Amino acid sequence: MSFLILFLLVLAREAMADVSSNPISASDTLTLDGIRDSLIRQENSIVYSLIERARFPLNRQIYLQNNASIPGFSGSLVEFIVRETEAIQAKAGRYENPEENPFFPESLPRPLVNPHKYPKDLHPSGASINMNKAIWEFYFDKFLPLLVADGDDGNYAATAASDLACLQALSRRIHCGKYVAEVKFRDAPKEYETPIRSKERDTLTKLLTFVAVEEMVKKRVEKKAMVFGQEVTLNNTNEGGKHTIDPSLASRLYSEWVIPLTKEVEVEYLLCRLE
Amino acid sequence: MSFLILFLLVLAREAMADVSSNPISASDTLTLDGIRDSLIRQENSIVYSLIERARFPLNRQIYLQNNASIPGFSGSLVEFIVRETEAIQAKAGRYENPEENPFFPESLPRPLVNPHKYPKDLHPSGASINMNKAIWEFYFDKFLPLLVADGDDGNYAATAASDLACLQALSRRIHCGKYVAEVKFRDAPKEYETPIRSKERDTLTKLLTFVAVEEMVKKRVEKKAMVFGQEVTLNNTNEGGKHTIDPSLASRLYSEWVIPLTKEVEVEYLLCRLE
Repeated sequence: MSFLILFLLVLAREAMADVSSNPISASDTLTLDGIRDSLIRQENSIVYSLIERARFPLNRQIYLQNNASIPGFSGSLVEFIVRETEAIQAKAGRYENPEENPFFPESLPRPLVNPHKYPKDLHPSGASINMNKAIWEFYFDKFLPLLVADGDDGNYAATAASDLACLQALSRRIHCGKYVAEVKFRDAPKEYETPIRSKERDTLTKLLTFVAVEEMVKKRVEKKAMVFGQEVTLNNTNEGGKHTIDPSLASRLYSEWVIPLTKEVEVEYLLCRLE
Repeated sequence: MSFLILFLLVLAREAMADVSSNPISASDTLTLDGIRDSLIRQENSIVYSLIERARFPLNRQIYLQNNASIPGFSGSLVEFIVRETEAIQAKAGRYENPEENPFFPESLPRPLVNPHKYPKDLHPSGASINMNKAIWEFYFDKFLPLLVADGDDGNYAATAASDLACLQALSRRIHCGKYVAEVKFRDAPKEYETPIRSKERDTLTKLLTFVAVEEMVKKRVEKKAMVFGQEVTLNNTNEGGKHTIDPSLASRLYSEWVIPLTKEVEVEYLLCRLE
């Protein structure tokens, strides 16, 4: 009997593993389907992180320069927390994974753990592309004021930590453009060669753009914000009711920033692909 | 026209603020309803954090003692990351908030920011109760092996960071027992006085137990795991379909650990309440 239960538990976990989609680098071969599965799963992480950030008001204090009396540090509190947390995570090997890109890559400490062997799927020149400066700017300057209400509840550390979770989820998603570009290039190298050699960014962007797919992604992200952000009571689920974040904002995030920046990563990647 | 849009945006954000339930300490007066709203909102954070942890396999490496070559440090990698991240967040004032309790309270650095003025709702003796050792033990030794599949994908830093998110969400929820106990005591001080003076833990536990409420909480958490962990596609939402975590595990987490430990916090708090 207990063996049967154990067997059922193993089966159930196997089934769950399908959904908790693996990182790209865990797959043996790089395929567009594999990358798409990962991107779809990452939408969930992005939506959860936005919902969690929206628990707090803006807490403007943490974004002001020189507002914390930190010896030898003149940035904002959020910059301090992101820098220091990235340094710890670097020691644990976070940035050995080619899917992860630090916001403050200068003088990160070396990993203290034996590095995992990640497959070398990316072209070396393109692997180091880092678009985090643009992500940082749109997130704090444009998006955050749309996401949260003004106000101060004193939860500065928790707020900054949840900003970091949003930034990391967005950064991971946007830099997946490197893998998308690599696979698309491998599938049709001849198609890309001419515009790469003549550095025709617009032609490359057009080759990489599928409006119908983008529309589907935007709609799905909006639906996820609706489903994951709904008020759940025992009596009913209420997708149409109150939400912790405005679902259309998730769609706008993708439309205005995530999708364009992913394509920018793809174009930059392709431009180095023949080096 | 643009003024109308701005006005509608403000209205929409006001409506959202209702759902993104504030921390307990943000309320002017401590009420059981206020605490319950916060606990209900915290269920969401717990469920999101479990779903996010379940993206990764166990990654056993990070839980082994002495496995990282960190100068002057002999614990596990996860302990290193939690300790160091807590230290950074302490500098940003996280533990000035009486709702937050560190896992490694020894020698935390002082905050570098002006502390927020949190209302002093708790009795001083009870305010310092810290049940995080018990939370750490059940989470890593009992719960985590049920949540994730065995395996190693090398994402050690991201895995440890998501463990920290789970631990912090659970710790916050369980230590809310202090506020629950404070309000219940204020509502009926005479009822609690005798068992407090004679240190009758069992009587206090009975006074604090409402089986019907506990059943409701367990069912709601299971439902949240089902709703927030479902696979969302554009064609349909599918609560009954695949899930990123087994919904019954969320209920079991509450039943076996979260609810009993919260009551332990409540009892410990009451036992100091007349000091």
